[in-house]
Amino acid sequence: MKKVKKVNAIIIIIGNEILSGRTQDVNVVNISSWLNGLGVKLEEVRVIPDIEKAIVRTIREVKRKFKYVFTTGGIGPTHDDITSKSVAKAFNAKYSYHPEAYKLLKNYYEKGKFNTGRRKMAKTPKNASLIYNPSSAAPGFNIKNVYCLPGVPSILKSMLGGLNNKIIGGDKIFSKTLSLRTIESEISIPLEKVQNKFKKLEIGSYPFFKQGKIGVSLVIRSSNLKLIEKCLNNITKFVKKKKIKIIKN
Amino acid sequence: MKKVKKVNAIIIIIGNEILSGRTQDVNVVNISSWLNGLGVKLEEVRVIPDIEKAIVRTIREVKRKFKYVFTTGGIGPTHDDITSKSVAKAFNAKYSYHPEAYKLLKNYYEKGKFNTGRRKMAKTPKNASLIYNPSSAAPGFNIKNVYCLPGVPSILKSMLGGLNNKIIGGDKIFSKTLSLRTIESEISIPLEKVQNKFKKLEIGSYPFFKQGKIGVSLVIRSSNLKLIEKCLNNITKFVKKKKIKIIKN
Repeated sequence: MKKVKKVNAIIIIIGNEILSGRTQDVNVVNISSWLNGLGVKLEEVRVIPDIEKAIVRTIREVKRKFKYVFTTGGIGPTHDDITSKSVAKAFNAKYSYHPEAYKLLKNYYEKGKFNTGRRKMAKTPKNASLIYNPSSAAPGFNIKNVYCLPGVPSILKSMLGGLNNKIIGGDKIFSKTLSLRTIESEISIPLEKVQNKFKKLEIGSYPFFKQGKIGVSLVIRSSNLKLIEKCLNNITKFVKKKKIKIIKN
Repeated sequence: MKKVKKVNAIIIIIGNEILSGRTQDVNVVNISSWLNGLGVKLEEVRVIPDIEKAIVRTIREVKRKFKYVFTTGGIGPTHDDITSKSVAKAFNAKYSYHPEAYKLLKNYYEKGKFNTGRRKMAKTPKNASLIYNPSSAAPGFNIKNVYCLPGVPSILKSMLGGLNNKIIGGDKIFSKTLSLRTIESEISIPLEKVQNKFKKLEIGSYPFFKQGKIGVSLVIRSSNLKLIEKCLNNITKFVKKKKIKIIKN
């Protein structure tokens, strides 16, 4: 059998605004969906505050444990934007003007408008590579296996495409969903039997309420599409036997 | 000066569906807003997969570091619901039927319908206390400083009220927002000066795009309402001097 190559990632969301409940994060869904397509499995997410010590400690820990580390937030011009400085510290790298970022930003602003706040956005850990920003000028950056992106979702999304060649994934992860008009406790026993038969597949069971009606979505994920189909057949068998309605597959 | 009492918390989201990008988490916003009212500061969030080893390792680590630990997800009847079992393991506690939960669930279901899958929802770490569920019968549970809640947002929300007396917070955290028609790099310098003057306050700066117009929201958080007002005055001063329009305060 072909050896499955697994590549993992973690997202570090740097943002008091997420922790305080003020802002709803949407970057995880966007980054995760993009990573699925590249064959990279998101294995953990952490939301941490805008505190240098917390950022340095977290980056030092996770850069050893994960193939790819993505951070979101904290690379703007204000005093609470301390991601670049903290990531530099985590790598014991100098925090200084990145010549190319400086040039990019200087050209972007009208003459005389490239003030101290804006200049701050040109600072990165020394020897970082830039992640270009097609929405506004301020770039993200990458040092070793850590990729630092902005927090504003529309800007972040516009920057992911530019990373496609840098992130080398493993086998693509496929996902199939079967939605049933039932409740979880009606199918838990036969479903567990199927899971035990297909130990290499990840079968998730998710109850939902939609337009006043309840149901359960079964999600099967794997890099082996044939195995997913086989597993689906096994599930469909017991579903039909139990006369459960299939809403969508 | 009165000593400020700080109480912290972490949320552990247990769910492959969040990591895969399939589901958008909304529980963090709900739990965090509720905690604010109780004077508990959410200091970290982690999203981890439905893997026993990952759950046990994470719970063991964070239960020592945080005053309160909340978990969401994984307490339903299916094979991928392994939170209760894993939390029991993290505490080296027996994983067994909780007599009260068993009774609650047995009474909830029609005669003969209390099947093996449903019975699983009555299992908790030994000596756990129940967190009652006014939406459906299946309870959450609490062992030491760890509180395990379901993943379905509407059910989770309905259960928080029952915990109000169990979670003992510190000083209530207040928050004031000032929204400006400007961009961050226009105000970063004077804003940093204000932050340096009010070191005990947390001032966050968040750019936004709404109805085609850009702006910046400044959020000041502290348990000292008077200090927040003083800080707001300082900000308003430089805002007026710069002739920046105040959208909302």
